[in-house]
Amino acid sequence: MDRSFASDNYAGVHPEVLAALAAANDGHEISYGEDSVTQRLREVVKAEFGERAEAYPVFNGTGANVVALTSVLPRWGALVTTTTSHMHTDEGGAPEKTAGLKLFPVPTPDGKLTPELLETEAFGYGDEHRAQPLAVSIAQTTELGTLYRPEEIRAVADAAHAHGMTVHLDGSRLWNAAAALGVPFREFTTDAGVDVLSLGATKNGTLAAEAIVVLDPARVDGIVYLRKTAMQLPSKMRFLSAQILALFDGGLGLRAAAHANAMAARLRAAIEGLPGLGFSQDTDANAIFAVLDNAVADRIRDRYRFYDWDRAAGQVRWMTSWDTTEADVDAFAAVIREELAR
Amino acid sequence: MDRSFASDNYAGVHPEVLAALAAANDGHEISYGEDSVTQRLREVVKAEFGERAEAYPVFNGTGANVVALTSVLPRWGALVTTTTSHMHTDEGGAPEKTAGLKLFPVPTPDGKLTPELLETEAFGYGDEHRAQPLAVSIAQTTELGTLYRPEEIRAVADAAHAHGMTVHLDGSRLWNAAAALGVPFREFTTDAGVDVLSLGATKNGTLAAEAIVVLDPARVDGIVYLRKTAMQLPSKMRFLSAQILALFDGGLGLRAAAHANAMAARLRAAIEGLPGLGFSQDTDANAIFAVLDNAVADRIRDRYRFYDWDRAAGQVRWMTSWDTTEADVDAFAAVIREELAR
Amino acid sequence: MDRSFASDNYAGVHPEVLAALAAANDGHEISYGEDSVTQRLREVVKAEFGERAEAYPVFNGTGANVVALTSVLPRWGALVTTTTSHMHTDEGGAPEKTAGLKLFPVPTPDGKLTPELLETEAFGYGDEHRAQPLAVSIAQTTELGTLYRPEEIRAVADAAHAHGMTVHLDGSRLWNAAAALGVPFREFTTDAGVDVLSLGATKNGTLAAEAIVVLDPARVDGIVYLRKTAMQLPSKMRFLSAQILALFDGGLGLRAAAHANAMAARLRAAIEGLPGLGFSQDTDANAIFAVLDNAVADRIRDRYRFYDWDRAAGQVRWMTSWDTTEADVDAFAAVIREELAR
Amino acid sequence: MDRSFASDNYAGVHPEVLAALAAANDGHEISYGEDSVTQRLREVVKAEFGERAEAYPVFNGTGANVVALTSVLPRWGALVTTTTSHMHTDEGGAPEKTAGLKLFPVPTPDGKLTPELLETEAFGYGDEHRAQPLAVSIAQTTELGTLYRPEEIRAVADAAHAHGMTVHLDGSRLWNAAAALGVPFREFTTDAGVDVLSLGATKNGTLAAEAIVVLDPARVDGIVYLRKTAMQLPSKMRFLSAQILALFDGGLGLRAAAHANAMAARLRAAIEGLPGLGFSQDTDANAIFAVLDNAVADRIRDRYRFYDWDRAAGQVRWMTSWDTTEADVDAFAAVIREELAR
Repeated sequence: MDRSFASDNYAGVHPEVLAALAAANDGHEISYGEDSVTQRLREVVKAEFGERAEAYPVFNGTGANVVALTSVLPRWGALVTTTTSHMHTDEGGAPEKTAGLKLFPVPTPDGKLTPELLETEAFGYGDEHRAQPLAVSIAQTTELGTLYRPEEIRAVADAAHAHGMTVHLDGSRLWNAAAALGVPFREFTTDAGVDVLSLGATKNGTLAAEAIVVLDPARVDGIVYLRKTAMQLPSKMRFLSAQILALFDGGLGLRAAAHANAMAARLRAAIEGLPGLGFSQDTDANAIFAVLDNAVADRIRDRYRFYDWDRAAGQVRWMTSWDTTEADVDAFAAVIREELAR
Repeated sequence: MDRSFASDNYAGVHPEVLAALAAANDGHEISYGEDSVTQRLREVVKAEFGERAEAYPVFNGTGANVVALTSVLPRWGALVTTTTSHMHTDEGGAPEKTAGLKLFPVPTPDGKLTPELLETEAFGYGDEHRAQPLAVSIAQTTELGTLYRPEEIRAVADAAHAHGMTVHLDGSRLWNAAAALGVPFREFTTDAGVDVLSLGATKNGTLAAEAIVVLDPARVDGIVYLRKTAMQLPSKMRFLSAQILALFDGGLGLRAAAHANAMAARLRAAIEGLPGLGFSQDTDANAIFAVLDNAVADRIRDRYRFYDWDRAAGQVRWMTSWDTTEADVDAFAAVIREELAR
Repeated sequence: MDRSFASDNYAGVHPEVLAALAAANDGHEISYGEDSVTQRLREVVKAEFGERAEAYPVFNGTGANVVALTSVLPRWGALVTTTTSHMHTDEGGAPEKTAGLKLFPVPTPDGKLTPELLETEAFGYGDEHRAQPLAVSIAQTTELGTLYRPEEIRAVADAAHAHGMTVHLDGSRLWNAAAALGVPFREFTTDAGVDVLSLGATKNGTLAAEAIVVLDPARVDGIVYLRKTAMQLPSKMRFLSAQILALFDGGLGLRAAAHANAMAARLRAAIEGLPGLGFSQDTDANAIFAVLDNAVADRIRDRYRFYDWDRAAGQVRWMTSWDTTEADVDAFAAVIREELAR
Repeated sequence: MDRSFASDNYAGVHPEVLAALAAANDGHEISYGEDSVTQRLREVVKAEFGERAEAYPVFNGTGANVVALTSVLPRWGALVTTTTSHMHTDEGGAPEKTAGLKLFPVPTPDGKLTPELLETEAFGYGDEHRAQPLAVSIAQTTELGTLYRPEEIRAVADAAHAHGMTVHLDGSRLWNAAAALGVPFREFTTDAGVDVLSLGATKNGTLAAEAIVVLDPARVDGIVYLRKTAMQLPSKMRFLSAQILALFDGGLGLRAAAHANAMAARLRAAIEGLPGLGFSQDTDANAIFAVLDNAVADRIRDRYRFYDWDRAAGQVRWMTSWDTTEADVDAFAAVIREELAR
């Protein structure tokens, strides 16, 4: 199938990741994480996120989010997040259904939580009638393609910590954020007050591998047991670890994400200002949220696959990925221009 | 690390599986299962298990079991299984903890359920005080390395169906069973009354891929939703489907499993009758359950890694895998012989 | 303790209810619902709500809500409700934590859902990434003391049914609603499209008894099992049924609720227009939501116990109950007047 | 309905309990446990079980068990109990379904766990594949009508504590045990190593009230939140507390239970040795487990209601209660004698 602008999940596996899998396929290794590849991943994660950081490979992002949050919340805990968060809208209710997590979703203009927005649900401590809001989850980059600056994360984390809340960051596109910010991971995670995060890899060139990264071990409990009961413990773990390691090695992940971001910027630049086309969000990374007539969108979709975001509002989402080429972008921009002009 | 006899999960990936991954890595594909590779897996599964069979790739075996059972049981349902079943002893409580499944575990001499054993828990229908026993789960091969003959499965299935129960088969080593029985899959699954099964692949040469195979679609409900909420929905599904397909293509899976079985038989033959060594179970496939003095076992373990099964009873488990060689077996047998003789 | 305006849960038991308990205490009765008192409750509920109506006594309102919703939703289902609903804010997360229910809470101006508001979350059917919004829950009277007219309930129910959703009504104060509307129960429940409801009794003069009333039995499944697993099955059920029956017998419940409503109206009339005092909601039943300076509220509270609703907004809640007297109201109004005037 | 020997749940409410309800019905009281009656219950429980003891009223026994166990187990914990325990066989799967508790049920000859039996499931600590057995639950009296002597409880508790397990006691018939042993509650609970218990009251003369009693507060966490999310928090709590208090006041509960026990002993004495009648268990309290021909049992049942326990084995259960009279016993014994002799 031709490359589209539907999702970074449509892209395949980076050749260097496949090569890493082959390299990891060397004789026997102890299963369930006691292998040498996972051991090296643990060390690399410490180098990237700080000495206290601990890595726990899992299968997918929903699993990473649910296990991470379950490990920081007591059974009576609740989670403050945005109404547009993946956890609230796109995980089929997994947090509630498999882990009994209660969500307090907060509306935002741009997918970003602020200390002020957090306060609207951070109350009722000690009242048994209210699920206790003891964690907050933000996404970086957000589900709307926007980006927190490190100090914005710091502000949310400070506000959360003041309430005794733990700070989780859904980093399904953490590499795109790092590439966009141009700073090391730890500057907008560990050093900004994040306690635990979901480290995405699949969207950025692996085939199926993510990790929970614990930044403050004092805030989590039982994570190895919870990973198992959440059905997220890989038996031949070395092959998941190898995928993630491949992104760290030689800066592959950062290069891949920077390229995806650049392609989104190129696309936006090519179509910005076209009559009949608006944008509902900034394009901080590899997603463009465009607003245009449904009929025009449908004609473009006849030629390139992509998803409506909010059909009533004429909103669509165009994603770039590690394998999007400049030629792809230019051809797609031409089609957009053409159909808008009809 | 050298090849051991600890677990088929210690083995790596078959080279043909890696090749299949590379072949599937061709441009973009729709995510979450609408891809061409998964489509082909669906067709192959129909060819192997019958026209009504439906395949749902997932990440691991615990996930396959839990999603399968949740899709056949109402919220008030319970599951009859053996006390030695993986679901009761080795999934960390995942069935109970993530899906609220109630288990009625039944003791067995050899890991195999019979109609008589099933009856001991198949009662209380209509009584709201008793979780309703509406499914049974058996494993093929069992967790004790034993094997059901097709007519034995048929007998359990008939007894279960007479109570209105659904029949699940945990096939984490289904290929080893097929190889050992020398009959097509459907002869001991679809045609023997099994309604839904977990199709293993990881232990038999893939890196991380399993599938739920529904044989009687009338008995399952909501499985695509349940797979998602159980965090078992792979985004780039084609790469999981490709692994499983590789086992079906050209008979690779059957060859790999037959080889593992043969290596277990070779090992057992080489050590059967040695003084101080007994066997608590038949070796029907790729597992040997041996009984020997703890001290001897520990000396052997100094040279080859493997697991105690029941230390109080002096029981250990020796597993072979797709990559075990005749030389591995002979060397291990020599060590066993040597340490027993000391 | 003196009567306050804090909560209708502070009130005691109506003497006629205690008398009914004594009357039910006659020898042995079969436990768990096969008794003669529960049988009579079933008949009375049919007379009040329609021939298809079925009553299931439970211990409390949270239990009634959770069991009712669990009986109408598949495991992958979600519930649309208001952000101010008891289920979202005051049940400690019980729906999520004990039953895996996913909530889509919708902001409203007055605690009342409308077809338009329902539409904002009634989408994504067939998409496995979204918990399926298959039920809606509204409260009558609402948690903000407001009231749906029968045609307003009908409109929400029609919109919900058009999406295949089931309609639940949280009737923890259903008697107050019936008294305020002056119409039979069935006119704003069964005949308005409600499928299942929680019938409150505790707040209206019993000691601990509520019931689930199923109006459309075709929409619920397994409710007797779910009541048991939700720990809401009373062993000596006759004594719960007797409490609820006492409210139906001789119109006691309606009289009690009408009195509570009248006391709230009397209070509001006595203080309406006082300088420094506003009201954020209509007083349709037995709750007054007043807005006043925190300092004034605190001075009043030194003399009468009541709860802040939203301290930042200066909102407080004043409740009347079946045992509030005219003298209580007049004395409290005098205190309010006095403290506002200071 | 005439008094039968089916269940102590068939009995009504003791008149002194009804009087206590009326006495508690005095004006307003703060809801949810801040009332004066509950305060007095707390003090009485301390007097009976020790200064550290804390009482939490709940609605029913299943609720007490589930909340108690949830408060002592982490999410990855499991519970060792007997195969005949109420939690495994008669709660409809509530522990698994509402709280994700994993059970390891152990077969016993008489419903009583021993240190040796406990050891069969108390293993696997630190292994993420095994739900961690961190609590044990025993019943006093047991579901088979047998009784632990204080030193037998002590032995189980010591063995459990040695593994780091918490000891729960299901005391749905704790009064019968106390009456049978003739020692204070604390001698076979607090002083015998029990950490938390479910204190029954309903079967012994109340209408619907039980309590969790925490004996070692250091071992429980979040119980007030868990009671709420388990839908076991009574709004007008004073009326539940009043029922339980009534049993403590003036020794009513002990008298009632002693009477029930005596009636069971009288019945057993009257029928012991009759040809065709055997007993599968000792009659330590108020239950008789008799073995007789199904046809005879059915003829007796035509005249007195009671339940089969294991029809295949010809086992039936005959219960006495606080209101059973000597005349009831003698008449029933005559019927048994008569039908056995036919």
